[in-house]
Amino acid sequence: MRICVVGLGLIGGSIAKDLKASGVYTITGIDHNEDHLKEALSLGLIDKAGDENDLANTGVVVVAIPVNAAVALLPEILDKVDDDTLVMDVGSTKALVCDRVANHPKRRNFLATHPIAGTEFSGPAAAESGLFSGKTNIVCEVEKTAFKLQERAKDIFETLGMRIRYMDPKSHDKHIAYVSHLSHISSFMLGKTVIQEERNERDIFDMAGSGFESTVRLAKSSPAMWTPIFKHNRENVMETLDGYIENLRHFRDLLAEENYEAIYSEMENTNRIKDILKGITIKTL
Amino acid sequence: MRICVVGLGLIGGSIAKDLKASGVYTITGIDHNEDHLKEALSLGLIDKAGDENDLANTGVVVVAIPVNAAVALLPEILDKVDDDTLVMDVGSTKALVCDRVANHPKRRNFLATHPIAGTEFSGPAAAESGLFSGKTNIVCEVEKTAFKLQERAKDIFETLGMRIRYMDPKSHDKHIAYVSHLSHISSFMLGKTVIQEERNERDIFDMAGSGFESTVRLAKSSPAMWTPIFKHNRENVMETLDGYIENLRHFRDLLAEENYEAIYSEMENTNRIKDILKGITIKTL
Repeated sequence: MRICVVGLGLIGGSIAKDLKASGVYTITGIDHNEDHLKEALSLGLIDKAGDENDLANTGVVVVAIPVNAAVALLPEILDKVDDDTLVMDVGSTKALVCDRVANHPKRRNFLATHPIAGTEFSGPAAAESGLFSGKTNIVCEVEKTAFKLQERAKDIFETLGMRIRYMDPKSHDKHIAYVSHLSHISSFMLGKTVIQEERNERDIFDMAGSGFESTVRLAKSSPAMWTPIFKHNRENVMETLDGYIENLRHFRDLLAEENYEAIYSEMENTNRIKDILKGITIKTL
Repeated sequence: MRICVVGLGLIGGSIAKDLKASGVYTITGIDHNEDHLKEALSLGLIDKAGDENDLANTGVVVVAIPVNAAVALLPEILDKVDDDTLVMDVGSTKALVCDRVANHPKRRNFLATHPIAGTEFSGPAAAESGLFSGKTNIVCEVEKTAFKLQERAKDIFETLGMRIRYMDPKSHDKHIAYVSHLSHISSFMLGKTVIQEERNERDIFDMAGSGFESTVRLAKSSPAMWTPIFKHNRENVMETLDGYIENLRHFRDLLAEENYEAIYSEMENTNRIKDILKGITIKTL
């Protein structure tokens, strides 16, 4: 089956790579960035470099571009595909995308998904085999997609090794703000705070260990990808930030009051994250 | 040469393991926790389980216990050792320790060090070979230690594969608050914030990916180790927290104002952490 992957960055490139390697799918890559297209071809992520004319006569179109671009382009893509083509997006926010296509005549051709996997790197060179293996894929409004196309999507997720969780787009956006978007902001602001201090002391990073490294890892992420995510999910993200800032301020107050018993409890209570995380497949980089 | 390692947790156990493996040193382990002592012996981290009577007739005493315990015990340990014994601590704060021994008659037997390495795990079973290899060891007030004993310490650091940086204790405590202590609090409070949200939604952790996992890793750390560190370094830690909270609040304000250009710049400016971190040896777990 022929699949068009629109957007050959980390996510699109990794999807293309594994699906191509399965031998079941032929991959046509589409990217407005000519260099990315060439790179994806030379890295063997895709079988062929294409353009929007390839959207017709294709079994599946995977849209793997920043969420603002996806919201803008999805209706046009749906306009262009055949009546039996599946169009999937893989963006990190789901409510706006689902809203945008809600009344499209080809709504039943569309499936909203969010494969929860990634690294802090971007571009075709960041594509990895097995990136999605064992990871969770959130699928939204599945009932609005044609049965046959749901099956086609499921085959693809199975090839990628993903498990599926069904969720409504509003709940997805609310919860993902906590477990993903907040982590990114906490990491970016940690990086910023330490860089500010570095202005006074050039040698500070010589003292940084693996703890800092892992906590600040996400601060390497792409602003072009993350700005639209924060925009789409603004209200939820603000809520998580308010909760986080409140918790930090409380910890700071306990320190100001020298209430070390309470500080101990704060940490001890949060230690249960150990057991919680055991359920998460850990990807070390 | 005979070395007594006092405290057989992650750090003491890892030091013991590598020094014993070198064949140059014989390791006597001392720990007030009998189970840890037995465990260290059965794991082969030490040659022999000992007690405070072993502090005499020993070349080096490595003190690897929580910083509050080290401050309390170091004068007693110095009282008990021979005139030509080196006593080193390896704690994460340095000013209070250096103050505490400043006027001790055996001050020249003491060296204040902070090997910057570790994991979020604790106890003898967390000990790892090679934990310190390629890592930085901060040495404070080196000029107050006898030359011969400085050399003895250097041999040990070389065996462990560490590079040495000399720094005064106050600067150490100020800078380490940024690159280590703040990371731990940001991680603990991130874990707390997400656990709070989990109360409303049991399935939230099913959506957590590797980004959350790495950002929250340090929230698994031991409260018994970290409470005294925050106590010792209270003022510096409060300063880093104030800066961090201010940066988070600013980001939240930009989001409230929908100033996405500024949000983009915040992230882009912090992306330079990529280049900065290239200098840090990365330990993936």
